[in-house]
Amino acid sequence: MQILMSEAAHGRVRNPLADLQLDLDVVTVDGDGALKRDNALVGAASVDPEVVWVSLDTFKSGQLAHLFGKLLTGTRVKWTQIFAAGVDNPAFKAVMAKGIRLTKSSAQGPSIAEYVIAHAFNLLHPIEAQRKAQTAHAWTQIDFREIASTRWLMVGFGSIGYEIARRLQPFNAQLTVVRRNAGQDPLAAEVISTSDLLSRLPQADVVILACALTEETKGLANDAFFQAMKAGSLFINIARGGLVDEAALKAGLEQDKPARAVLDVFETEPLPDTSWLWGHPKVSVTAHGSNAGDGVLARGDKLFLENLSRYSRGEVLLHEATRSEVGL
Amino acid sequence: MQILMSEAAHGRVRNPLADLQLDLDVVTVDGDGALKRDNALVGAASVDPEVVWVSLDTFKSGQLAHLFGKLLTGTRVKWTQIFAAGVDNPAFKAVMAKGIRLTKSSAQGPSIAEYVIAHAFNLLHPIEAQRKAQTAHAWTQIDFREIASTRWLMVGFGSIGYEIARRLQPFNAQLTVVRRNAGQDPLAAEVISTSDLLSRLPQADVVILACALTEETKGLANDAFFQAMKAGSLFINIARGGLVDEAALKAGLEQDKPARAVLDVFETEPLPDTSWLWGHPKVSVTAHGSNAGDGVLARGDKLFLENLSRYSRGEVLLHEATRSEVGL
Repeated sequence: MQILMSEAAHGRVRNPLADLQLDLDVVTVDGDGALKRDNALVGAASVDPEVVWVSLDTFKSGQLAHLFGKLLTGTRVKWTQIFAAGVDNPAFKAVMAKGIRLTKSSAQGPSIAEYVIAHAFNLLHPIEAQRKAQTAHAWTQIDFREIASTRWLMVGFGSIGYEIARRLQPFNAQLTVVRRNAGQDPLAAEVISTSDLLSRLPQADVVILACALTEETKGLANDAFFQAMKAGSLFINIARGGLVDEAALKAGLEQDKPARAVLDVFETEPLPDTSWLWGHPKVSVTAHGSNAGDGVLARGDKLFLENLSRYSRGEVLLHEATRSEVGL
Repeated sequence: MQILMSEAAHGRVRNPLADLQLDLDVVTVDGDGALKRDNALVGAASVDPEVVWVSLDTFKSGQLAHLFGKLLTGTRVKWTQIFAAGVDNPAFKAVMAKGIRLTKSSAQGPSIAEYVIAHAFNLLHPIEAQRKAQTAHAWTQIDFREIASTRWLMVGFGSIGYEIARRLQPFNAQLTVVRRNAGQDPLAAEVISTSDLLSRLPQADVVILACALTEETKGLANDAFFQAMKAGSLFINIARGGLVDEAALKAGLEQDKPARAVLDVFETEPLPDTSWLWGHPKVSVTAHGSNAGDGVLARGDKLFLENLSRYSRGEVLLHEATRSEVGL
């Protein structure tokens, strides 16, 4: 089976790939778009892969366009492993419209979960007040509300939401998960459906958006959403900017609903220099970097190898996207 | 059995205490030192309790001295539940020297564990760098080392250390626990003995002191300790100030061993206004307030009730201090 991947990715997985003992014809693409087999150049005409791996290292490089080009022009592609966790980009719809199976990445999950927990705790714990007391040489015990007595509400429970919930669990906070369908999960106190979202927002001290951006979820955090939030609460978006009506957020902040917002994603990225968000005293802006942890690349490699092994045996693939997810 | 406790504590536990259905003679002491039974004053001569509960609410109040007075002058006291997790204060030695059983508190554990995790993550995660980028309106992804790739070393594994380890576990950091005797624990990658401490310090990114202050551990963090630390590491002390040679810490900071220190306890408390620690740019000073979480009081009440129930049935008491712990 012919597989197309970046030269850098092949360099990282060469040994474990060989250990799989599959009959593979690996073709690599380098930064200049040159195609190679065993370090020797090959003509584009002979490259028509069954599998295309769009690894994280190709993001922001010319290789990305080349890999997508093969995905869209290839005649035999059956499966692609991508580096993204969300598939709202129209390119993925075009790929799946061709009948190509697409598996998403779970590699960002731990990195994003660490971002969420670190930013949330930084605001929930009296670190800023303690710093001010230190500056004043004030020996003052600062009482604090324990995480254990806070309520969290998280919209979405895919691989990222799971990693957040898993890390929050030993702190004994009460977690409500919002999914399309209500249910149960050992990591959450309750799993409610989207239709019950507004009824639970008034109790939540921390609200996290960790869901996919779809036609259904677009603008989910609108005026009604923020008006329903608890005064003094914390709002975190690490999913997609399109989930949030930024004007509604601004109006909400004026009433402390939420009192603080931590935003890693925005309606327009890069966030325009003229955006009010940069300078708002209640808003933490980060540059879509919650996934910038140093473990993401290796986890992505591991996931590809696992899915390739499964693909070769005809087994279920991990994190396979559905047609409805990409809007088909 | 006669029990002496503060009026406030009795107010909180009156119902669950009644539910235990024990034959109790509860005597309370109020803020003025007045002794009462069923809200009626009783003479000091008739108060000679078998059990004395020194609850958290009596800390910093006159009741504390009164309860200790009864502990030391009473003729029948067999057991006391105290609010402290550490028993290095000489008063506890005096109590136990009388043959009185003493149980420590585990109620601070979750609060202190939250403090440790919040402060550690605040420094390990690039929150400060992200804040600076925001101030500059700079759309810059800031790469970060995941907690998952850090190594932690914790000295001590009592109720506080356990709560820290439990919360750290889902982040997949590598935790080395240092105890008097080596062993194994599912929450730690390894449990080593104190004699191996210096050999492991060079690998640790985060070092936490969570042990008791005893003749053996006094000045544990000395010149050799800090010289053995990894450059760029983080040092956190939530145990007792006497564990640290502050001059040695100062010398260590000059070599980034550690690069940052988070200190909640000090050789002298309150920390003197003249201390160099207040203004050092690499040091976070907090006023022995890691135990100031809002859940401590209720957990302390619950622990007392549990231990009282065990005491009444002649069962093992939770968190009972040994004579050697108090220096007997």
